[in-house]
Amino acid sequence: MRLEKDSLGEKEIPSGVYYGIQTLRAVENFPVSGRTERTELIYAYVTVKKAAVITNMKLGSLDNERGEAILKAADDVLHGKLADQFPVDLYQSGAGTSFNMNINEVLANRALEILNRNKGEYDYLSPNDHVNASQSSNDTFPTASHIAIIKESDKLYKTLINLGGSFKSKGKQLSDTPKSGRTHLMDAMPVTLGDEFIAYGNAIIRAAKEIHEKRNNLLEVAIGGTATGTGVNTPVFYRDNVVKKLAELTSLDLIPAKDSLEALQSRSQISNLSGALRELAHDLIRISNDLRLMGSGPTSGFAEINLPPVQPGSSIMPGKFNPVMAECLNMISFQIIGNDTTVSLAAQAGQFELNVMTPIMTSNILDSISFLNNYLPIFQTKCVEGITANNDRLKTIAEMNPSFATVLSPKIGYIKAAELVKQAMGSKKSIRDIVVIRGILSEEEADELLDLKTISKNLYTKE
Amino acid sequence: MRLEKDSLGEKEIPSGVYYGIQTLRAVENFPVSGRTERTELIYAYVTVKKAAVITNMKLGSLDNERGEAILKAADDVLHGKLADQFPVDLYQSGAGTSFNMNINEVLANRALEILNRNKGEYDYLSPNDHVNASQSSNDTFPTASHIAIIKESDKLYKTLINLGGSFKSKGKQLSDTPKSGRTHLMDAMPVTLGDEFIAYGNAIIRAAKEIHEKRNNLLEVAIGGTATGTGVNTPVFYRDNVVKKLAELTSLDLIPAKDSLEALQSRSQISNLSGALRELAHDLIRISNDLRLMGSGPTSGFAEINLPPVQPGSSIMPGKFNPVMAECLNMISFQIIGNDTTVSLAAQAGQFELNVMTPIMTSNILDSISFLNNYLPIFQTKCVEGITANNDRLKTIAEMNPSFATVLSPKIGYIKAAELVKQAMGSKKSIRDIVVIRGILSEEEADELLDLKTISKNLYTKE
Amino acid sequence: MRLEKDSLGEKEIPSGVYYGIQTLRAVENFPVSGRTERTELIYAYVTVKKAAVITNMKLGSLDNERGEAILKAADDVLHGKLADQFPVDLYQSGAGTSFNMNINEVLANRALEILNRNKGEYDYLSPNDHVNASQSSNDTFPTASHIAIIKESDKLYKTLINLGGSFKSKGKQLSDTPKSGRTHLMDAMPVTLGDEFIAYGNAIIRAAKEIHEKRNNLLEVAIGGTATGTGVNTPVFYRDNVVKKLAELTSLDLIPAKDSLEALQSRSQISNLSGALRELAHDLIRISNDLRLMGSGPTSGFAEINLPPVQPGSSIMPGKFNPVMAECLNMISFQIIGNDTTVSLAAQAGQFELNVMTPIMTSNILDSISFLNNYLPIFQTKCVEGITANNDRLKTIAEMNPSFATVLSPKIGYIKAAELVKQAMGSKKSIRDIVVIRGILSEEEADELLDLKTISKNLYTKE
Amino acid sequence: MRLEKDSLGEKEIPSGVYYGIQTLRAVENFPVSGRTERTELIYAYVTVKKAAVITNMKLGSLDNERGEAILKAADDVLHGKLADQFPVDLYQSGAGTSFNMNINEVLANRALEILNRNKGEYDYLSPNDHVNASQSSNDTFPTASHIAIIKESDKLYKTLINLGGSFKSKGKQLSDTPKSGRTHLMDAMPVTLGDEFIAYGNAIIRAAKEIHEKRNNLLEVAIGGTATGTGVNTPVFYRDNVVKKLAELTSLDLIPAKDSLEALQSRSQISNLSGALRELAHDLIRISNDLRLMGSGPTSGFAEINLPPVQPGSSIMPGKFNPVMAECLNMISFQIIGNDTTVSLAAQAGQFELNVMTPIMTSNILDSISFLNNYLPIFQTKCVEGITANNDRLKTIAEMNPSFATVLSPKIGYIKAAELVKQAMGSKKSIRDIVVIRGILSEEEADELLDLKTISKNLYTKE
Repeated sequence: MRLEKDSLGEKEIPSGVYYGIQTLRAVENFPVSGRTERTELIYAYVTVKKAAVITNMKLGSLDNERGEAILKAADDVLHGKLADQFPVDLYQSGAGTSFNMNINEVLANRALEILNRNKGEYDYLSPNDHVNASQSSNDTFPTASHIAIIKESDKLYKTLINLGGSFKSKGKQLSDTPKSGRTHLMDAMPVTLGDEFIAYGNAIIRAAKEIHEKRNNLLEVAIGGTATGTGVNTPVFYRDNVVKKLAELTSLDLIPAKDSLEALQSRSQISNLSGALRELAHDLIRISNDLRLMGSGPTSGFAEINLPPVQPGSSIMPGKFNPVMAECLNMISFQIIGNDTTVSLAAQAGQFELNVMTPIMTSNILDSISFLNNYLPIFQTKCVEGITANNDRLKTIAEMNPSFATVLSPKIGYIKAAELVKQAMGSKKSIRDIVVIRGILSEEEADELLDLKTISKNLYTKE
Repeated sequence: MRLEKDSLGEKEIPSGVYYGIQTLRAVENFPVSGRTERTELIYAYVTVKKAAVITNMKLGSLDNERGEAILKAADDVLHGKLADQFPVDLYQSGAGTSFNMNINEVLANRALEILNRNKGEYDYLSPNDHVNASQSSNDTFPTASHIAIIKESDKLYKTLINLGGSFKSKGKQLSDTPKSGRTHLMDAMPVTLGDEFIAYGNAIIRAAKEIHEKRNNLLEVAIGGTATGTGVNTPVFYRDNVVKKLAELTSLDLIPAKDSLEALQSRSQISNLSGALRELAHDLIRISNDLRLMGSGPTSGFAEINLPPVQPGSSIMPGKFNPVMAECLNMISFQIIGNDTTVSLAAQAGQFELNVMTPIMTSNILDSISFLNNYLPIFQTKCVEGITANNDRLKTIAEMNPSFATVLSPKIGYIKAAELVKQAMGSKKSIRDIVVIRGILSEEEADELLDLKTISKNLYTKE
Repeated sequence: MRLEKDSLGEKEIPSGVYYGIQTLRAVENFPVSGRTERTELIYAYVTVKKAAVITNMKLGSLDNERGEAILKAADDVLHGKLADQFPVDLYQSGAGTSFNMNINEVLANRALEILNRNKGEYDYLSPNDHVNASQSSNDTFPTASHIAIIKESDKLYKTLINLGGSFKSKGKQLSDTPKSGRTHLMDAMPVTLGDEFIAYGNAIIRAAKEIHEKRNNLLEVAIGGTATGTGVNTPVFYRDNVVKKLAELTSLDLIPAKDSLEALQSRSQISNLSGALRELAHDLIRISNDLRLMGSGPTSGFAEINLPPVQPGSSIMPGKFNPVMAECLNMISFQIIGNDTTVSLAAQAGQFELNVMTPIMTSNILDSISFLNNYLPIFQTKCVEGITANNDRLKTIAEMNPSFATVLSPKIGYIKAAELVKQAMGSKKSIRDIVVIRGILSEEEADELLDLKTISKNLYTKE
Repeated sequence: MRLEKDSLGEKEIPSGVYYGIQTLRAVENFPVSGRTERTELIYAYVTVKKAAVITNMKLGSLDNERGEAILKAADDVLHGKLADQFPVDLYQSGAGTSFNMNINEVLANRALEILNRNKGEYDYLSPNDHVNASQSSNDTFPTASHIAIIKESDKLYKTLINLGGSFKSKGKQLSDTPKSGRTHLMDAMPVTLGDEFIAYGNAIIRAAKEIHEKRNNLLEVAIGGTATGTGVNTPVFYRDNVVKKLAELTSLDLIPAKDSLEALQSRSQISNLSGALRELAHDLIRISNDLRLMGSGPTSGFAEINLPPVQPGSSIMPGKFNPVMAECLNMISFQIIGNDTTVSLAAQAGQFELNVMTPIMTSNILDSISFLNNYLPIFQTKCVEGITANNDRLKTIAEMNPSFATVLSPKIGYIKAAELVKQAMGSKKSIRDIVVIRGILSEEEADELLDLKTISKNLYTKE
């Protein structure tokens, strides 16, 4: 046990731990979820500390002995050590002060240890005065959040480009497979299964690009603003230097926030990225639903495609296989939209110089992205890549599709074409057979005009 | 033109109009949507005024001459006169002060007219001192909102009981129609189309009851609390008297708010009712989607039922009919959920003695309810009541449904039953045929155990 | 290693584990979040299994030897053993089939062990044929969800009644402390701090009761419906018996679902409870915001009350204390509303005989409730109970509050009273002083009519 | 009366009206809200028709006589004639087929009239075969929606740039006005009122730019895809020609959709714009809330600024003025977020070749934008531009702000600085006075280091 003190009094700290009194208070104050900040955020935050320490040393706000010790401590964390020293719950104090102090305390105590001093010897090296020099939770938490979200978004971008590409490859494989189009869920002009899958791929790639655009906006960082955005307690030239250093350490094109007050007040950049995740979720839900319907059956559904079975589907109905990969994607997508609602509420709740609700925004976004990064590659391999077409059934139902009559409209008019459809439906004949029987077209003309391959072809080249 | 004056100065008012300077200011301040408060709210509000005037006269806070004139003016409004004298936009001042003053001014000026005085002669009869006596916007707006919402909810309750009943009648008609069950959209143990429709009906009736419960909570009214809930500026015994009178005028079992401060601060009762509308929307979306899928086709879909055609479906594809009634219900339901989000945001935004965001809560809820009251009876007549079953198709696909194997599990075990399913799917045979071929059951046994009628029967009586 | 087999083939299972091939497939298929189902759900699910096993034994669907072994296995789990044998992710297969099979497999293998047989010897005792007898994921998952949610809601009910009570006790302490009322954030008729806190307490208690009502609706359970609600593969009298047994085991007044199909299709009961949590969140946000504002300062804010300091507030600004307990409650509340959005999306996504999105509904609701159960007692002790009033400041600002003029309106009219306010504001005098100066009231009259204690009193008794 | 016929039978149409049988059916089928499509959408749709007609004439799909007549009819509509001929409700058939047919019928009948023929003489000039030639609702409704939304967004962009500019001008006026900073609502390092307002302006301008980016994505249009995106029933070269013509007619840089199927299936572009409106709403809520708090009082609030009074605030409390302009903006912003929820639900509900929920997306977005375009200029003039600072009060409270101690930290350390704050708060002295009394700084040093002007200065130039 060691004794630590802050403005509220003293507390005993287990001697083994690297965090200190403020972390302990936060642990006692916020035992909410049992979930702690993600490694990605810890690493991003420690990197922010490194940039600040280096800049403080350079500008004379921190001596080299202490500075070097803190840097070594930071590298320890970045090398995966001390991973259990960050016990602050995701639901914590506003602005993430508790988490910032957790970082400060761990780095201070590890640095003290490196300097062969006792943990808690803050007179010599203080979490506030040295590790946190020229910083505030108010500028470092958003900065670390930006960096962590950018890094995870970059992984997501790759994940999505892969998934989109996988849909498009599948589409190319299936480019000669006509199928009934469906609008309003009713038979409509045929398309190819290939074009369908390519469109899914393009929707995903479009969503990826939107996310990437929003990610770029996060390159503006708040650091240097300190408590209220004015930069109080920073040495001259601090902000430009620290951002440059941070850019170097993260290999990201970071720039100082254009308006240093707005950068603390408004979380619109983070919230915008959350919105882009929501848009992705819309398309993922839509595509999952389509896959589930196309795969429905085997005898009572559309049964146009086969989704690869990955596990028995039912505990009671033997031999049943369910589209579980797509269902799981639906559920993840619903969660992403729910998480985005949380972000939205937090975004509108900023007040004056700070949006104190930032921690919950960051954790919800990192959750959403990580769920996708974990799951989508598996969804791609275990579901998308293994999809096959039921060619016979696709052909049979497409050929009976009465919307073929559409191509007759320019010839005989919409109203007469509608009558043909009525007749076809009544007699369970195809439009092709009806037009021949009615003498509207010869067999040859009918076969040419009403050929499924031709009719399902997309006039517009797609990439 | 007449000249009116308030604490901000003078304004010219067109001589014909019954509203006054504060209404005019609101019109100029809030030209947002061009939509004005609904008649239901105007009538409810005017009824609140009547109750207050009668109570004020009884308790000596208002003389009979003025009181009677205001009551006559109120009755004019309730008989549909002066309907164009309420121009305040739905998006107006917090707490609905503008709308309350609009009501006050119209009643004052019409009362002045009845007393053979000039409009604007507020020295004699004032919107604030006489019409608004013993009241504030802060207690009257929520009270009028409760009443308007109760009345509209009562209509909705009937609408929903009818709609639920219609689904259940349809279900009884179709009680001998087996169909494939579907879980995960995959073939599952058969049910009857009748039980399906009865379940839809029961879901709607359950939602109706939830709404009715929430409606009952609105019987607690804020009136008498005046500015901050303490009842300042009301005569002794005012609250009990005014609530009793209001109960009589509205024929509703109104009671005074249990906590008169909470009644101004928290809008949870209104928000709860909005939540119940959202729950209804969930079920309506689900049921609409099921109907659309069961009606999908004619050749490429489930094609189990026919939704009555109500209009040509496509401007380009002749002879196409779309499930437009169900689609419109989907869209209305999405709007209800969106409106509920608005209500939710408003509900959490109350501050201290008042939730000033009440006007938007009321208008969104009244919108949602009125959309349903307008549309559901038509949806019932033009869609639900006209639905017919495609008996042949239902039978064919249900009999091939491989989940029949489920009933063999208790006999031969889940794993062996699963193998039968595999074989059935491979050979495109029914489970019945396979078990006979494999000699697991005799033809007679198979016909008895695997009879579609028996197997689709619900063991549990449903009402 | 042991080898297990299902309809998709064989897999090696580490010999130590109690789960089997289907759990392993789920682990491989759904590595989404690293979060697994909560103990509450595991226990509820295992209790459902117990009820089914006992009923199956009674009705002859399961022999006693196997039955007793499964019951012992179940008790092991309920006593906290095997806690690490449930690795299925929260985001899993639709309908929770994977989790049901996880439960089935663990119970089967532990039962086999109890019977001195090898794990995996499913020919003797099978997860599907014996543990899952007369059941489906489709009826057991919702049933277990209802039970888990009821139990957690009951804890929450107590938590909320305590918290509400704490606000009301604080209110009673502060019943003689007048303060400025605030409507539209502007000075309004005074109230007492006591009435304010009592109103907060009443709002929380009202929300608790709403949650309890919704909890009661969950007493209707789906069990007995099996695959599609029809009860296929259950012995005669199964449903009534199993529900009675489950009621006994859980000490809950469970009843069979009124419509056994609806009970699988519609998740409105669960979704309704989520909605009630959202309503609670609205009030918690509102109350937190009020507390934060009343405690704002020390010199630039309202500074009416002191929130007990629980940790230093700023890493950069010394001596600062922030309302972190209230901020954390805001963030938790935002998360609850976000989780509710997820539930809402899942609720509307049911299709035909099943809502496969149930797992995500259950996990989001259990998360939300547990966050509140963990945090609110601490919020109560560390924040609410320690609040003190700044009596001097409260008095000073309340007495200068110009809305005192309201009580003069009935005497001198609204317009003249408004002029007094103007004069008071211009001269920085209180309304009391102005009326005396202007000779409207004598000093004695003024002191009586404009006494802060009298004016802030609530006319309506509150409990 | 005239008689019209479609595939469902005959109906009598009042002889005066220009719409026909399908419009009438829609009016009867969808009497939901009484609200009809906005003029902006009507004009955009008619312009799409013009482009199609011109292209059809050029490519030989429509003869000049009929084509010219339709063009004249279209111009009539665009000149404001026939404005009452579009009675289809906002909540209508999926995909907007009813509205497309309404447009087609009005143009056909007006064209017939121009050709001196009878309304309804569709054998000669048909709504489907001629007006709708080479088109479907499925490609024209999204195209017209894009155009209408772009045009309205462009107005909004200007509105927002003006509003942002107004905040920044106000900021420049107030650049020498220090005020207490507030983080967590607690006193924090001072800033200037000017920097605060500039930050508000920058947030709004940033939101404007986001909206503009999303608007640019809408330049991709679906037209030419017809029923299912494949372009069936269009003449060769149709798509490029019609898009070029439409670009010319609208003066917008329209381009053909990159993936013609995706353009019908996915509404992510529209939904993305809705998301950008939501982000704007977050900032507007935040800024409104800040303004309301800064203006709170007059005696019990922050009272830092004066919001110009625009109407008496209370029906019961004389002389009260409320921040009604900001409150109305809050309510509008809540509605925008609710409307966005509706859009989000619609966006995820697309199925196969079409998202039939498009009409509700378009109408919600056009509502949201128009509310802002109507209100923000008034909010700017009546609220923002008239704001004044309470200089004395700002100075007094800022100087007592204990966070001044922050600048002492680098000198004396965080812990000692915290003690000074404690002492200052206890003795109601300013930090400046305390440090002088304690002899930490001389009077001169204190006045220099702790000068409010210096301390509130932003180190970073803002535009």
